[in-house]
Amino acid sequence: MKITPHLASLALLFGAALAPAADAPVLRGYSPESAHAEHDWEVMFRATPSAQNLHDYMQRLSARPHHVGSPYDKDNAEWILAKFKEWGLDAHIETFEVLFPTPKTRALEMVAPERFTAKLAEPTVAGDPTSGQHDEQLPTYNAYSIDGDVTAPLVYVNYGVPEDYERLDRLGVSVKGAIVIARYGGSWRGIKPKVAAEHGAIGCIIYSDPKEDGYYAGEVFPQGPYRPKDGVQRGSVMDMPVYPGDPLTPGIGATANAKRLAIKDAQTLTKIPVLPISYGDAQPLLAALTGPVAPEAWRGALPITYRVGPGAARVHLKLEFNWDMKKIYDVVARIPGAPYPDEWIVRGNHHDAWVNGADDPVSGTVALMEEARAFAELQKQGWKPKRTLIYCVWDGEEEGLLGSTEWAEEHDQELRRHAAMYINSDANGRGFLGMAGSHSLEKFINGVARDIEDPEKKMPVWKRDQLARISRAPSAERDELRKRSELRIAALGSGSDYTAFIDHLGIATLDLGFGGEDGGGIYHSVYDDFYWYTHFADGDFIYGRALAQTAGTAMMRFADADLLPYDFTNFAETVRRYGDEVQKLWKTESDEIRERNKEIEEGVFSATADPRKTSVPPPAETQPPFLNFAPLENGLAALTRAAERYDKAAQKAKLDKPGIEAVNEKLIRVERGLTLPDGLPGRPWFEHQIYAPGFYTGYGVKTLPGVREAIEQKRWKEADEQIVRVGKVLEKEAALIEDAAAGLE
Amino acid sequence: MKITPHLASLALLFGAALAPAADAPVLRGYSPESAHAEHDWEVMFRATPSAQNLHDYMQRLSARPHHVGSPYDKDNAEWILAKFKEWGLDAHIETFEVLFPTPKTRALEMVAPERFTAKLAEPTVAGDPTSGQHDEQLPTYNAYSIDGDVTAPLVYVNYGVPEDYERLDRLGVSVKGAIVIARYGGSWRGIKPKVAAEHGAIGCIIYSDPKEDGYYAGEVFPQGPYRPKDGVQRGSVMDMPVYPGDPLTPGIGATANAKRLAIKDAQTLTKIPVLPISYGDAQPLLAALTGPVAPEAWRGALPITYRVGPGAARVHLKLEFNWDMKKIYDVVARIPGAPYPDEWIVRGNHHDAWVNGADDPVSGTVALMEEARAFAELQKQGWKPKRTLIYCVWDGEEEGLLGSTEWAEEHDQELRRHAAMYINSDANGRGFLGMAGSHSLEKFINGVARDIEDPEKKMPVWKRDQLARISRAPSAERDELRKRSELRIAALGSGSDYTAFIDHLGIATLDLGFGGEDGGGIYHSVYDDFYWYTHFADGDFIYGRALAQTAGTAMMRFADADLLPYDFTNFAETVRRYGDEVQKLWKTESDEIRERNKEIEEGVFSATADPRKTSVPPPAETQPPFLNFAPLENGLAALTRAAERYDKAAQKAKLDKPGIEAVNEKLIRVERGLTLPDGLPGRPWFEHQIYAPGFYTGYGVKTLPGVREAIEQKRWKEADEQIVRVGKVLEKEAALIEDAAAGLE
Repeated sequence: MKITPHLASLALLFGAALAPAADAPVLRGYSPESAHAEHDWEVMFRATPSAQNLHDYMQRLSARPHHVGSPYDKDNAEWILAKFKEWGLDAHIETFEVLFPTPKTRALEMVAPERFTAKLAEPTVAGDPTSGQHDEQLPTYNAYSIDGDVTAPLVYVNYGVPEDYERLDRLGVSVKGAIVIARYGGSWRGIKPKVAAEHGAIGCIIYSDPKEDGYYAGEVFPQGPYRPKDGVQRGSVMDMPVYPGDPLTPGIGATANAKRLAIKDAQTLTKIPVLPISYGDAQPLLAALTGPVAPEAWRGALPITYRVGPGAARVHLKLEFNWDMKKIYDVVARIPGAPYPDEWIVRGNHHDAWVNGADDPVSGTVALMEEARAFAELQKQGWKPKRTLIYCVWDGEEEGLLGSTEWAEEHDQELRRHAAMYINSDANGRGFLGMAGSHSLEKFINGVARDIEDPEKKMPVWKRDQLARISRAPSAERDELRKRSELRIAALGSGSDYTAFIDHLGIATLDLGFGGEDGGGIYHSVYDDFYWYTHFADGDFIYGRALAQTAGTAMMRFADADLLPYDFTNFAETVRRYGDEVQKLWKTESDEIRERNKEIEEGVFSATADPRKTSVPPPAETQPPFLNFAPLENGLAALTRAAERYDKAAQKAKLDKPGIEAVNEKLIRVERGLTLPDGLPGRPWFEHQIYAPGFYTGYGVKTLPGVREAIEQKRWKEADEQIVRVGKVLEKEAALIEDAAAGLE
Repeated sequence: MKITPHLASLALLFGAALAPAADAPVLRGYSPESAHAEHDWEVMFRATPSAQNLHDYMQRLSARPHHVGSPYDKDNAEWILAKFKEWGLDAHIETFEVLFPTPKTRALEMVAPERFTAKLAEPTVAGDPTSGQHDEQLPTYNAYSIDGDVTAPLVYVNYGVPEDYERLDRLGVSVKGAIVIARYGGSWRGIKPKVAAEHGAIGCIIYSDPKEDGYYAGEVFPQGPYRPKDGVQRGSVMDMPVYPGDPLTPGIGATANAKRLAIKDAQTLTKIPVLPISYGDAQPLLAALTGPVAPEAWRGALPITYRVGPGAARVHLKLEFNWDMKKIYDVVARIPGAPYPDEWIVRGNHHDAWVNGADDPVSGTVALMEEARAFAELQKQGWKPKRTLIYCVWDGEEEGLLGSTEWAEEHDQELRRHAAMYINSDANGRGFLGMAGSHSLEKFINGVARDIEDPEKKMPVWKRDQLARISRAPSAERDELRKRSELRIAALGSGSDYTAFIDHLGIATLDLGFGGEDGGGIYHSVYDDFYWYTHFADGDFIYGRALAQTAGTAMMRFADADLLPYDFTNFAETVRRYGDEVQKLWKTESDEIRERNKEIEEGVFSATADPRKTSVPPPAETQPPFLNFAPLENGLAALTRAAERYDKAAQKAKLDKPGIEAVNEKLIRVERGLTLPDGLPGRPWFEHQIYAPGFYTGYGVKTLPGVREAIEQKRWKEADEQIVRVGKVLEKEAALIEDAAAGLE
């Protein structure tokens, strides 16, 4: 097949939604000639992914349970490798050896006031062909819980985040020596046992309340997509905010001969035993609690009066694990670029699952595979990227981002030298494009989103996202949404394979995926399978195709640019907002402490306490000192100046002049300027100083994390120190940007 | 017993909490000498009410069901009369004859997709001695529902208020020809069938969701105070926002020979049949609904997926009533005043209940009785009020404020001439003092609240209320709470016996009661009884005593004043706020319509609609015209000037000079200046132009109702007209106040 007629017909096909080639598309970082060529190749690329292929790959990949260590996990990796090779790609499997505990004993029973033994099992659903593969399914458990055998009174702690324990203090309830029961939600699950242990609890149960993703949200499986009574959310409880990846090899690749910590020295295992359960198992436990009625915001959707405890309810929790080493299989394919083979654009999505994982992660995996196939096709048509594309299909994401972290750690130096961008995806659904990542890529990814057609609405996904944001926005924000040329992208915390790339290595990163019309409650259960996905999610795979189109367009558009299309004005503006936020945070905390102290003095707490209920007033607190935000302000000012200078220079630059290569080499390292080798306080692995997952949120992002968390946790001296550090980082970053600008001028 | 030593010992006893007599108490409207005497009598008064008496009266009054038409209703009235007489009061019973339908047939069944027959009965609770008096209990029903026999598909309408139907429109669901099921809450119950009928429904079921007052809120009866599975909230559904009282005699007393409407011409009966049910009966009906999943805010606490319908669920509702005339018994006692026997201070609380009614209303009734007894005691000690106190114990409140409304209508002219104030109470509980009413009494009732001791916290109830408000307030409001010398009192809507006094006759009114620590879910059920009250509410009757002390102090302090202690500065300031609110309301509506029209044009609704769900965009609306608020502003300015002049004059006035009597006579009529004889648009019975229950809220107040409701309902021409009317009313009011001020100057 010839290229030209093919492209012409495609242009005809897509002409309505997208600018026709004849209209001289303007692409950031492209000379007009390059933009023309790129446009034509992109149109061809986006026509290639096939919904039928996505369907077929998913059916194959999710046909059996394929968690780390299972035969089908390895089998899938080999099948993906074979496919890559079949398409003509240069691919291989890279293996690591990681600690991965699996259950030997799981027992949960209530021993008083009456006896109840938890089922801890997800039954087969008639009509769902894979739900009954019990022999191969991982039991319901939380990976990296320690072993334990504890019996104690039970206390309900809501989400189990620090504020919840403050509330318990006000109710006069302590968890010291107790087993806590927390509901899923409100934080990443690994935070719950961590905070519980900090407060003296000796065991932790996590359950899925039907309010979060059960019948309260919608009809339950198999009648609807939501969590049935016995559905359990498995999941890792490794202390990932300290470091993700193999607990025994922090900072280095877990190769066969790597130097390993003893298990007892691994920092990221839990301090107390933890077990996830269904709401079917949770209801008798919660119903047996006495003590204060739970605060209104703590109540879920079970037909009981939620009480906090403690009381007569005593629970016995026994957990023993096989602390085995398992092999994980990352599949890596390389599409070599020219003339810049040493500038890498990396793409990843994991392939391992907790069970069958049709949604998580296979819906994303198959999109990545179709991108790779489409690029293989494009190569056959004569396309060759300017830079090297690396396609990675990670193993062991579910247990703690194992495959991506170990690979990133193993290739640390190369990646820091060569990687210009990492694009991640994970589970994908129907609806709206979600864009998150480094704000130096905000303009870039907005440009991509303008060129992707929404398969349901036949308008650019960018436009659909903009209109959706308008529909939800408070009135004060609508004007910006209508006028700003880019939609703001979210900052990244953690929860998927981008973590090592952005947080540890300082590589500019994007995370992409569709969703919002795909509610459900099968997350990390046996019911996340092909039957569920094809009945309740993107069953015709049109959003799977859209994801392949979006991420693939971003990959090739970054790879083919004359000047790497970073932008620093949006980045500087965004960090300016973070700077304002942390200053406001200090003010709010200071005002709150002043007000609370005043109320204590006025007797508000004693006057309003119901004498028939226990009510403990909060302790008076020392008024926070004023902080010196000047170093941060200076850094922000320098960053803003540099960004503006670079922007002007980039707009004027002749993109075909020889010096461009040197500028690109500098640009690749600009995001690295935001890291510090000794990382964040108490967690040196996290080097990025602008973005990090919260120490007490787990997945939720904290921007300017050093400063923000010091203020949140009232470590005022540390806050002042962190402001100085971040200020210096911003000045260093500004210098890097100025340097790149100088290269263009 | 001699007076002087008795008083001395009391002063000693209460000295800690209250200003000692020697300190020359300052009382608004009192000369220093009068204040001294008043203070001493008040101290004596407040020492008199006995918790034991309150307990004993409640036990007697709630021993059997005592709804209108029951033997025990009449018996209670006669017993109260006998008590009044026994204490030496001049008392009598005044009767009226009212339309009061009781059930002949009640049937509710689901006929498809499966059969289910509702129980419609509240079972006996073991241990609760009165819950089994089934022979005397009124069945569970809504009074003034019309007869009906309908079978139709079922649709869930959340609270059944107008916004809920707008939401249904967006979901593409119509209630035309359907039976609706609404949950209690969000509006007064009578609004639900009214709005349902306006939208074409042919029947209405109202149920108590456990989220409102069942297990979601706390433990259910008899383990706790909340509504058990089969508990039903009875209640009137008469269209009270049109006019309350006997449906056949609007505007006139329902005496034996009154001219009556035919039943078919009564405006306030419902248009469709209505029945209240328990959540036990509601669950199978709601679980059978299909159609869209209910919006999140619509979901209750039943363990089901709330769906809107319609679908296969069809319901048969059959209701027939005995449309009988019943006699009601108001007990009225008079404590004649001198030298101003024709200036009346009126006090009321009802005695009838839906069943045993220990909480509603007996907890308030018994406090009123103790006040009356205490005044009888005081009279024996030599006290005589300057003005006449009238103590009323109303019958038929539950059915539609029958006893108070008919009495007020029957004595219309006398009351308009003589009544200076009406103080109402109803069910009373533990906690904080609630104060609501005419803002010309705001300063007055704040002064009283400063002199009442909170029985739990041994501080003035005013102080406890202030601290509680501080604890709940958003930060922007705390400063005012700390600095303003009065706590703001709420404006009155409807829902108790004050309605005819303030809304129809224009008598300055207060409504008082304690609560906030007395949650429960037995409202209008058989479980509102002595067992419940003494286990879960103010079982030691310390707040019953505090209510008697509060209302009684207010009665005597108003009755004994030299100059009637109205104040118009707080009133003017409050109406100024209402004026700002309605202007802001117009602006908000105008902005919302502009924004919505813009979003329709931009395609927000079609772009965000999930193609797998029905989603109907809202219709474009005409942009509202600008309104002329100048007449309101002029009225407010005049009112403010007059209030300031009066305040200055009152502060300077010699209160023992002869002209004071004439000023008092004028002052009595000042609140009447806020009425217009042709009332509000479409409901002439409601004469007050500042306060009214909302046409679509039922109990909830609408201030500046003529203007506010015209804006809310987008009747722009009417809004402009109402602004002119209210402006004139405020100018008329200003003139009355200026006239009173002139009398003092």
